[in-house]
Amino acid sequence: MQHILCSDLEGVFVPEIWINVAEKTGVEELRLTTRDISDYNLLMDKRLSVLDANGLTLADIQAVIKKIDPLPGALEFLDAIRAERQIIIVSDTFLEFAGPLMEKLGRPTLFCNCLKVDGSGRIIGYELRQADGKKKTTLALQNLNYRVIAFGDSYNDISMLQTADSAFLFRPPENVVQEFPQIPVAYEYDKLMGLIKGAVSS
Amino acid sequence: MQHILCSDLEGVFVPEIWINVAEKTGVEELRLTTRDISDYNLLMDKRLSVLDANGLTLADIQAVIKKIDPLPGALEFLDAIRAERQIIIVSDTFLEFAGPLMEKLGRPTLFCNCLKVDGSGRIIGYELRQADGKKKTTLALQNLNYRVIAFGDSYNDISMLQTADSAFLFRPPENVVQEFPQIPVAYEYDKLMGLIKGAVSS
Repeated sequence: MQHILCSDLEGVFVPEIWINVAEKTGVEELRLTTRDISDYNLLMDKRLSVLDANGLTLADIQAVIKKIDPLPGALEFLDAIRAERQIIIVSDTFLEFAGPLMEKLGRPTLFCNCLKVDGSGRIIGYELRQADGKKKTTLALQNLNYRVIAFGDSYNDISMLQTADSAFLFRPPENVVQEFPQIPVAYEYDKLMGLIKGAVSS
Repeated sequence: MQHILCSDLEGVFVPEIWINVAEKTGVEELRLTTRDISDYNLLMDKRLSVLDANGLTLADIQAVIKKIDPLPGALEFLDAIRAERQIIIVSDTFLEFAGPLMEKLGRPTLFCNCLKVDGSGRIIGYELRQADGKKKTTLALQNLNYRVIAFGDSYNDISMLQTADSAFLFRPPENVVQEFPQIPVAYEYDKLMGLIKGAVSS
């Protein structure tokens, strides 16, 4: 059977995008995460109204995101992976935000959500492609007769990791490690590569 | 709805691989196609026995394939596509053959088959991932809530094209054009890009 990789984006290959946007724009309210507002739709509505209140258009945010770099070593790791096999990155982020970062990563395939933008560049809404997209992507790839090796860093990756044929946590917070002790953990790309190679040859 | 592209490889982005291998190795029997031996498994068995009879290992073939270039304009077209959206290339070729060409194309994601190789580098078999993989990939992407825009050049692309939400023929042979007059045709990348943009905005 052929193996394919399925991975998260933020925390794995790039830093958390909203937190970086908050830092680089100085708009502290953009730091809010699902830890602060657990309902994702409420959180996104809040973020969009904060952007609006600060007169920030999509172009402004993209200019900020262009200054963010992938995590050190991420490009080299991805290049090494892509020289040998295929990888699909599945993220809850938006295509319009991830674009500049994906370019720096050599444009691996990204399945994610997208924004609604009006003629003036104002972000007026967003479109979530589907609920639990990470798990559904894993199932779709298995249905295409791939053996899926998945990795991610946090709670929103767990259903993908539990569905995949092999799964690893990369730089997870300690509570995730405690809660899912059966999932092997890597904190460095070298270790992650070793786990992936082990899964391919097992 | 987000759009995603799904395309063929040989004839669309790169020349026909086996024909080029035949030319560059001088082994004329490798020119055989499904037009000569209609049963794909019989054809592949024949090809592998020809490779063997000529002492050609995977490394030899890969060395030949490294000298093949993508079609003129293919890289620029793919880069322009990938700057805006995602593309999955689905092919009946083998990962081990396509590798050097995919590298020249900037490593877009490729869903294809793979070879079985022994310790000495001899190709001893192959693994077809699944029957009608192009159509099944299209269905899988639709199931992930993507609207699929597909393009290909020939008969083995038709089930994908007929399943996709929008579909185009790129540089098809004349008999395919005659047989499927309802599918719009492009002979140049600029025209194909225009058709894709039309499909996205429709």
